[in-house]
Parts: sequence; C-alpha cells; structure tokens
Amino acid sequence: MIAQTLKWIALRQAQGGEQSRTSDIDGFLELIDQRRLPAELVKIQCRDVEQLYEAIKTLAVRGAPAIGVAAAYGLVLAIQNLDTRHSILDALECLKKASEKLSSSRPTAVNLFWALDRVRKRAEEFVSAAPNGKLQALREAVLAEANTIYLEDVDMCRRIGLNGEKFIKDGSAILTHCNAGALATAGQGTALSIVYEANRRDGLRQKKAKKFKVYVDETRPLLQGARLTAWELKQAGIEVILICDNMAGWLMKQGKINACFTGADRIAANGDTANKIGTYSLSILAGEHGVPFYIAAPLSTFDLSIKSGAEIPIEQRTADEVVTFPPHGRRINAGTRIAPDEISVYNPAFDVTEAKDITAIITDKGVIEKPNADKILALLGDAKTRK
Amino acid sequence: MIAQTLKWIALRQAQGGEQSRTSDIDGFLELIDQRRLPAELVKIQCRDVEQLYEAIKTLAVRGAPAIGVAAAYGLVLAIQNLDTRHSILDALECLKKASEKLSSSRPTAVNLFWALDRVRKRAEEFVSAAPNGKLQALREAVLAEANTIYLEDVDMCRRIGLNGEKFIKDGSAILTHCNAGALATAGQGTALSIVYEANRRDGLRQKKAKKFKVYVDETRPLLQGARLTAWELKQAGIEVILICDNMAGWLMKQGKINACFTGADRIAANGDTANKIGTYSLSILAGEHGVPFYIAAPLSTFDLSIKSGAEIPIEQRTADEVVTFPPHGRRINAGTRIAPDEISVYNPAFDVTEAKDITAIITDKGVIEKPNADKILALLGDAKTRK
Repeated sequence: MIAQTLKWIALRQAQGGEQSRTSDIDGFLELIDQRRLPAELVKIQCRDVEQLYEAIKTLAVRGAPAIGVAAAYGLVLAIQNLDTRHSILDALECLKKASEKLSSSRPTAVNLFWALDRVRKRAEEFVSAAPNGKLQALREAVLAEANTIYLEDVDMCRRIGLNGEKFIKDGSAILTHCNAGALATAGQGTALSIVYEANRRDGLRQKKAKKFKVYVDETRPLLQGARLTAWELKQAGIEVILICDNMAGWLMKQGKINACFTGADRIAANGDTANKIGTYSLSILAGEHGVPFYIAAPLSTFDLSIKSGAEIPIEQRTADEVVTFPPHGRRINAGTRIAPDEISVYNPAFDVTEAKDITAIITDKGVIEKPNADKILALLGDAKTRK
Repeated sequence: MIAQTLKWIALRQAQGGEQSRTSDIDGFLELIDQRRLPAELVKIQCRDVEQLYEAIKTLAVRGAPAIGVAAAYGLVLAIQNLDTRHSILDALECLKKASEKLSSSRPTAVNLFWALDRVRKRAEEFVSAAPNGKLQALREAVLAEANTIYLEDVDMCRRIGLNGEKFIKDGSAILTHCNAGALATAGQGTALSIVYEANRRDGLRQKKAKKFKVYVDETRPLLQGARLTAWELKQAGIEVILICDNMAGWLMKQGKINACFTGADRIAANGDTANKIGTYSLSILAGEHGVPFYIAAPLSTFDLSIKSGAEIPIEQRTADEVVTFPPHGRRINAGTRIAPDEISVYNPAFDVTEAKDITAIITDKGVIEKPNADKILALLGDAKTRK
C-alpha cells in the first residue's frame, strides 16, 4: 500500500459515519509521524494550529508539497473553534495570525507560504463577495480551498507517474536518492510516483504491473533514503535494496542499474537542477556508465527567474547532522558522536546537476527530453496557455 | 603528533628505566583502543596471547599491517611466562599453539598469517642452529624478529610518504577515503604517510612544511574516515574537513579538490586496485574533473597472480553494518536501527578501481605513473633483485 502522509478526517467520519462535502468542516488533520519512521508507523492528529506548528517544525511532516497541504488544513483548524458569536472578520484575523505562526515553522519552505497565501486569499474573496456571510459558510470555503490544494497535489503526483512510468523497463533495476515519495507529498510522490505507476496493474488499459527492483541510496547525512524511501517502497510491496551512497557507482560499473530517478528542489530556466546533495555525483556516474538519468518534478519546481544552476544558492547546514547520530528525528536522544570534537565539516544540503547530464525531466504536464531553455519555456508556456 | 598505534613496552622502561636491546624481552604490547575512537584515546596493555586475541578480534587494533605487527609481538607474549624449567622445544610448541589461536582472530587477514609464520620460522631456525640453546636466547630471537617486522613496517610507511609527498602542492586541498593512516600500520600509514611527510618541516633538506587541507570522506558504512582518519589527522595538527561520501563529486565540481589519495587492499598485475567501497566512484569523479587520483601502497599489496581487477573477489558483508548505528565499535550498545526491518541490503566491502583511472601508484620502492603490467613488473622485479 502506498503511504498516505496526511489526510483530513471529518469528525462524522472518525465516528464511523460517511464523509460528506458539507459536514466535513469539523475534523482534524491526521499525519504519519515521520520522526518515528522506520521504527514504527504512528499517526498523529492535529486538532489546532499549535499542534500542527510543532509537527512541521520538528519534521513529523516534511517534504515541500506535503508541508504546503498540511499548512492549508492548518487554516481550517485555525477557525474551527470560533463560536457563532464571532464575525467572519474575526475569522479573517484568526487566519492571519495562524498564517504568521505556521509560516515561522520552516522559514525557507516556499510551498508553505504559497499554500497559506492561497487559502487566505480565498477567505478574503469570500468576505469581499459576501460581507454579511455566515461563519459556517466561510469555514466551508476555507476547507474547500484546502481540499483543492490537496487534490491538485494528488493529481500532480499521479500525472508525473503516468508520464514517467514508460522509462522503467520490465525486468530492470533502478536507483533513487533521498525521498521524492509519497511521504514528501499529499499524493504518491514525484520520482517514486513513477515507481508506483510502473508497479500498478491497470485492467482498463490492459497494463500489467512491471517487475523491477529499486536500489535506494541511504542519503547521508539525514538518511531520508534509508529511513523513508526504503520504508515506503517496502510498504507498497516494491522490491527494494538499500545501499550506502558510495556504492552506487560500483553497481553501475557492474551493469546492475538501468536508470536513475530523483526529485528536484529547484530547476533553472536552462534545466540545471538543484536537488539533495549527492545527486550531482550520481548524474556524472550515470553518464560515465551510459545509465539514463531522470529528474521528476512538477512544473512549480521551475524557476525561470534563474538562468542557470550557477545562480542557485546552496544552503550550508550544521555540522551536527554529519558528526552525531541519529542525525535528526527523535530529538529526545542526544545523538552518538561519530567524529572527533570540534572537527570542521562541509555540509551542503543540495548540489546542482547540469542540464546536459539529465536524460529527461518528467513533469506533470509532459516530458522534456534533453532539457534546454527553449524546450522548458515551450512546455511552461504551453501549460500556462492551456490553464 | 602522529598516532602510535602499537608499541612494545619493556618492563624496565615501563618502570622508568631506559630501554635496552638485551633486557627488553619482559614487557607488554600497548595498543590504542580503536573501538573507543574518536570519543576517547585509551591505550590497552596486552600481557598475554588471550588479551591480544580479543583485541584483534574485537577490532581494538585493525588495518592489515598493524594486525601483522601486533601478532608478531603476540608470539613474544606467548613464551614470556615460561619458566626456566621449560626447554626451547616446549617454547616451540607454545609458539605453535599461540599462532593457531591468533590466526583464528581475523581469518582473512593475510598479514596476520604472514607475520606469525615469519616469527615461528625464525624460532625454528634458532632451535635447529642451537638445539641446546637457552630459553632466554630464544626469547630474544623472537623479540628481535618482531622488532624487525615492526621496523620494516615503519620504514615502509616512511618511504611511501617520502615518495609521494611531492604530489601534494603547497596551498592545495586533497581528498582521502577510509583510513590508510597510522592507525592501520605500525608506522605513519600509507596514503596518510604522504600527508604527514608533506606537513613535515625538514631542516636538513631545507624543506618547509607545506600548507594544505585534507577533506576526509566519512566512509560508510563503518565510518573509518569520520572515526579514525579525521581523528588521527587532527591529532597531527593537519587541517581536516569531514564530508559525507556523496559530497566529494560536488567539491570537485567546484574546483575545491586538487588531488585524491587512497590506500589499497590488493593490486592486480595490470594495476587494477581493490580498495574500500567508494574508491571506484571517486576515481571516476576525479577523472571527470581532471583531478589526479593516487593510490598509496607497499609492494606487498601487489598480487601478480591476479591478472586484472575482474579476478579480484569482492567480500560481501552483513546488512547490520548498514542498517544499524553505530555500525560497529563498542558492541556493548545495540545499534539504533536506521532502516526498516528485514530490508535487503547490498554491502560490498571493496570495489575495484581500473588502472586507467589511476594517475600513479606510490609505493615504498618508487612511483609507478600511469600504471600498467609492464611498469609494475619492472618495479617489482627490480625491487626483488636489489634485495
């Protein structure tokens, strides 16, 4: 089964009833607690903004798209307990405060700001259109907007999967790095969505599930591959083999990898792609061994204001992630130290893979083979026109 | 200060007196307990074969050359407590038993068998030459042989360093992988010996210490880079920066690495080199970025019975090393699990770097640039002839 990272649970539904569009506004946000993976699958229920703030801040939920969707539901929670004495203007004030609080949980998460702004804008439109509208109706509008963001994310994931699944051949072995999976989105992930689609049997399209295996880089320092990707692929019944990052090249040399698939954090106008540290090395090793190298990302990952990878700033992170273990997660335990005291550490969170080393970028709107500025502009322009 | 992994300490010396050649046979072997690095520097004293057996088996001492030298001193310990009623034939029997015991501590360690055989052969020669010789004299012969093995190792290390130090340029930054240092030998290491020589001020040769820094791959899964190399370089006052294995390529891309130096576990007749997993990927990344890639190893690492790397068997190791943490070391603590239960793991201990991707092999007898079968045979033949 593909992991479901987060889900709005209406109270009626929680109490055994059927979910229905109009009565779902009273409820809670259920999240897989990723801090406790892979040791145990525990779900937490966020019933107010404070709980969700903590969940985002302490990485119970992570992955840019998943954080965005969670924050949207956070605004549903923000006005859930306002009683009927309050006006819709009070509610707007409430949404503003909740937005500020949630924005501060992960100060660099673009999807977080985007989702919060979108829901607040919807609420403001509601109030402009119906200044005497009921609080209940505003709540429904806010929930509807959060649900739309959720469903768009699910749809985006699925489309990437459908667009990319042809690149996984029956009987092959692929490699992935970090976690670009269901745990990072509201849907079935980006790079891993392709894996799930290749594994899906589809009676209507007379498509059989392909047989293949997935090598997973553990992805130091934060081990998202070992902790999250290996877990979610195993949950979904995919054959998975865990390796250390430094083993990928040797596997390619032995002809054991047929294709690489990773996600992306930001893609420049020319196709240069920032992603988790280690992606760049993989792209070079793949090129050297004639292994196709695919990036999977929604159109929203493209940043046309950035001409090439050289302009993408690379976040440098704390030495603690490298020198103590576990590097994060349950912060209750102080990590065991694995390097001498006061050692210097170089710990970039990302690196930049050059467009020339990318076989294709697989998006929700189509595939860009041998990406370059013209092809990217064409796809993005075309997608906008169609909208 | 360069770490001294092991040292024979004569009792007189331990009690504050001077060490002298004839009275050193009563003593003990002092070892740095590498299981406790980098958290603390603790030395252990082995006073009998059983203690040394435990030390080797539980990796208090590791690295092929260091294990060989330690085992040689183990045979000194084996006959240390025989009282004068015993004959030298009793002593030979004692050495045989101790040898068998020590051999079983690390069953694949070639240097271990080699050193034990060499010391026993010396004892047998002594008995053949002087069937009525004194036990005391036999003990001295055994200690002398162990000391010779020790000194040859120290000398071998130093020569590699002197031969290779010209490849470290003033003001440069180099990269190393795993631990090919003092902690793996009785002397100052192989690859790291080059670092120590480049850092040495030599008044006689009017040589100044070069300024440079060393990036150290942490070397998953067993973290020899983070735990041992970073520690010993820091001890020696070298500027060291720890990275995760997957960051090396990105450093090279940014022009931050001027040369790579690693050790070797086995070198085939054509120059193909087996070394710690991850070395192969580094060699490819170095080639792609025009970074020279050097292997440092004594002549004893060459195995001319093996034509090329394709014939070198690669040891596959247990999944535990990858999925639990700490991967080894103080076995008192059960490791924290960092991957799902029952996950498949691919964990090769070594990989094979192709001769074509090696800029030079730096040995104790000279440097082989652009190594191939002819050049290797020439150097090995020449070295043998001179012996």
